[in-house]
Amino acid sequence: MTALQTLLRGSGSASVRAAVVASRVSRPHAASRRCFSVSPRALSSFYPNWEPNGPTVKTEIPGPKSRDIIADLDKVVDTRSLNMLTDYTKSSGNYIADPDGNVLLDVYAQIASIPLGYNNPVLRKAAATDDMISGIINRPAIGNFPPHDWAETLRSGILKAAPKGLNQVFTAMAGSDANETAYKAAFMWRRQRDRGGPDVDFTPEELSSAMENKAPGSAPLSILSFRTGFHGRLFGTLSTTRSKPIHKIDIPAFDWPQATFPQLKYPLDQHAAENAAAEQAALQEVDHLIATHPQPVCAVVVEPVQSEGGDNHASPAFFRGLRELTKQRGVLLIVDEVQTGVGATGRFWAHEHWDLPSPPDMVTFSKKAQAAGYYYADPALRPNKPYRQFNTWMGDPVRALLFRAIVDEVERLDLVRHTAKVGEYLYGRLEELAKRYPGEFQNLRGKGMGTFIAFDNPRRDEFLRKAKTLGLNIGGCGESAVRLRPMLVFEEKHADILVEVMEKIVKSW
Amino acid sequence: MTALQTLLRGSGSASVRAAVVASRVSRPHAASRRCFSVSPRALSSFYPNWEPNGPTVKTEIPGPKSRDIIADLDKVVDTRSLNMLTDYTKSSGNYIADPDGNVLLDVYAQIASIPLGYNNPVLRKAAATDDMISGIINRPAIGNFPPHDWAETLRSGILKAAPKGLNQVFTAMAGSDANETAYKAAFMWRRQRDRGGPDVDFTPEELSSAMENKAPGSAPLSILSFRTGFHGRLFGTLSTTRSKPIHKIDIPAFDWPQATFPQLKYPLDQHAAENAAAEQAALQEVDHLIATHPQPVCAVVVEPVQSEGGDNHASPAFFRGLRELTKQRGVLLIVDEVQTGVGATGRFWAHEHWDLPSPPDMVTFSKKAQAAGYYYADPALRPNKPYRQFNTWMGDPVRALLFRAIVDEVERLDLVRHTAKVGEYLYGRLEELAKRYPGEFQNLRGKGMGTFIAFDNPRRDEFLRKAKTLGLNIGGCGESAVRLRPMLVFEEKHADILVEVMEKIVKSW
Repeated sequence: MTALQTLLRGSGSASVRAAVVASRVSRPHAASRRCFSVSPRALSSFYPNWEPNGPTVKTEIPGPKSRDIIADLDKVVDTRSLNMLTDYTKSSGNYIADPDGNVLLDVYAQIASIPLGYNNPVLRKAAATDDMISGIINRPAIGNFPPHDWAETLRSGILKAAPKGLNQVFTAMAGSDANETAYKAAFMWRRQRDRGGPDVDFTPEELSSAMENKAPGSAPLSILSFRTGFHGRLFGTLSTTRSKPIHKIDIPAFDWPQATFPQLKYPLDQHAAENAAAEQAALQEVDHLIATHPQPVCAVVVEPVQSEGGDNHASPAFFRGLRELTKQRGVLLIVDEVQTGVGATGRFWAHEHWDLPSPPDMVTFSKKAQAAGYYYADPALRPNKPYRQFNTWMGDPVRALLFRAIVDEVERLDLVRHTAKVGEYLYGRLEELAKRYPGEFQNLRGKGMGTFIAFDNPRRDEFLRKAKTLGLNIGGCGESAVRLRPMLVFEEKHADILVEVMEKIVKSW
Repeated sequence: MTALQTLLRGSGSASVRAAVVASRVSRPHAASRRCFSVSPRALSSFYPNWEPNGPTVKTEIPGPKSRDIIADLDKVVDTRSLNMLTDYTKSSGNYIADPDGNVLLDVYAQIASIPLGYNNPVLRKAAATDDMISGIINRPAIGNFPPHDWAETLRSGILKAAPKGLNQVFTAMAGSDANETAYKAAFMWRRQRDRGGPDVDFTPEELSSAMENKAPGSAPLSILSFRTGFHGRLFGTLSTTRSKPIHKIDIPAFDWPQATFPQLKYPLDQHAAENAAAEQAALQEVDHLIATHPQPVCAVVVEPVQSEGGDNHASPAFFRGLRELTKQRGVLLIVDEVQTGVGATGRFWAHEHWDLPSPPDMVTFSKKAQAAGYYYADPALRPNKPYRQFNTWMGDPVRALLFRAIVDEVERLDLVRHTAKVGEYLYGRLEELAKRYPGEFQNLRGKGMGTFIAFDNPRRDEFLRKAKTLGLNIGGCGESAVRLRPMLVFEEKHADILVEVMEKIVKSW
């Protein structure tokens, strides 16, 4: 136990807690750092009386209460991936709470999936409406029995947020099946094209071999993905996921191709030529694989920023090249915006940063959208017969309604622009830190990408653990990256606390 | 348009509608049929003022309002699998409503996924609680940040309902990923066993080959399923789904084995020896495939009743044989209770009918449970390291809470026993029908299986369409089966209406 934890242990009353927080995180720097102040902007700018004015650490994490509960929980579910037992009733805004009275600034946000803070008052109202209650208790099989106002629900929510150029959607449950159904759409599209159009029927041989899981009915086709990419953990998506062996080992996989994702060097302005060459080489590899892979490539799937795989970025030029190349090769481009979508990069969709001449063929979404699925536009992406792309629930009206409320609130509070601005501020502060502690904040990346920022730390896992003891919940990705995934209600004052805690961590070593 | 529709069209007022309904469905038979009466038991026995006392058909289905809405909806989603546009605000109990004022008795129930009727008043209360609202707006990444009361939520709901002998759960989103994650558990379990236990680490070759989707890391192992079975439509589950080519064609699949599901002949008592031989042959085929398939079989997955594939039954003796055989061969038995679970067969889990000497290794669930996942007991089914079986959300607290409310209500109203009893009554009435119209109600099956009843009809699709015009929403499966999937609040009086309408259909031909 650290001295700080000992000090904090037992400081139960609100006033003591506030004093401890203030002395620990805020006060010492309020005078010394230009942009760092707590008092005048202590509370959320967005909702009154929503958030605490800083983190509170009262015990080790997990503390004694949490440890008891976790031991009990472990009897019925595997808890080895448990990061922090959470009391959601006590969490608010950017702060996550646990049963021991610890309240942490949360820049991990349920693996980047909470958009507007815990216990958001506007979402709370949306969750209590009759529409929402009906969505819970009358769950429809949307493909067979859609609600009479489903078009309206989609147009005012999921489709209101649709990427430019894409005006249709297939709804799913989560990121993994959003991607899998997009892959299925790609396979059906490709075979339809090869057969000579939607009116050409299946052959008897195709029909019978499909039932045997054999070619030609079970099509020997592929999806091309990138090394260190992550697209989910179901069997199809896992075959395109190339993040870590622990995600893949022992699970059967399709023999699909992978291309190298450009490995950019930082700072970018010092490695411009090298990086451009790496991106060019990656595009050539994609082109070569499409031309030569024995299982024809129907689609390329790519994340705007490879998130789980280490927050790996590429330039807009790379993605424009990928769009051009896939068009030339007659291959679909699926942009996986499961983690990058819904504002965190300072654009609603990260691929808006690329200035593409024509939109991606499909864009998949989940996480912060709460709803999930894939957007598309080309009518040829609707299979030639019904029930080919189908399942019982086909998404979830509860989350479609919630996404509508999220989209409205993002718009009302101008949260995408806000995030771009806060991200710029945060990036600037991190640049200062990286100058002072270059070994601890390596390869700082995400400039101009809102709060979607990361850096490498040689003792990353220790860094993450230490952060908790100082009131910060923060995540990692890849081998050595610390990834920042704050919510859209993250403000400059939160950035100050974040930077402060990170400096404390590296100073303590 | 039928004469009946013409008659009904425009009969908008409640009293006129009630009179029409009464004259059309109830009165003519109240005197002539022993168990058929409407008036004294017209309303739900379970909740006051909940249901209409019969169906109302006012227009063609889809009617003019629905047609306009569907045309508009089709601009943004593929509507070719649309069965009936639904107004859930006007649906109640066993009755589903549309925007044209049509109200149908629903024995399809969102593809067997509504347990307690539309707008159930007790579930409505559960959906408005603070817990539920928190589950909506504070959606957790359960594997990393479980709610502090998650063990309590599970024990009072999902685990309270656990099959005998299974005391642990991995939660998922829907049936398809419940099955896929169960398959993943099976693969990891098998490789762990083959390696020599959980403490034997992966080899460098396994780790590197897994990243290339190659053996040995991407294990060349298989799941054995049955012909005409259905387990989902994601890539892994689709490889075990053998229902229809339209579900599978053009989608890459794993080269996994399938065994023949016994093709029982009806009536069972007239084909006892033949059927026993068919079951024995199927078991021998399973045994042979396990012994010889080039990709070692890690698990056998089976539905208690093959539902999507045609409502194909097998005897308890067959399933006991399968349990024994898989045990002997060191292969897991996964029972897919996605459609059969939660009461409709007159037991909470259909496999309770089998009287197994030892439980299945895993039981998967979804649909009526609203929550989804797989139950298990053996600690060896927890992979040897964390993050091997993991994803962002790992289920949905909203549906876990709803399942808790469902389980409580099923218990309070004794709905499993109720369904067994109503099923017996319904089966008896169908036997009478089948005697009178043997060509129209062929292979009646599901005796003693609650309301989980089906029969074959030579003009099945027309049968289903015609049913709508007479106030009945009913589903098909397989090539020619009509499947009955009523809710657990289906009563004898609903059975009377159902039988009445079905007789009208076949009489009209």
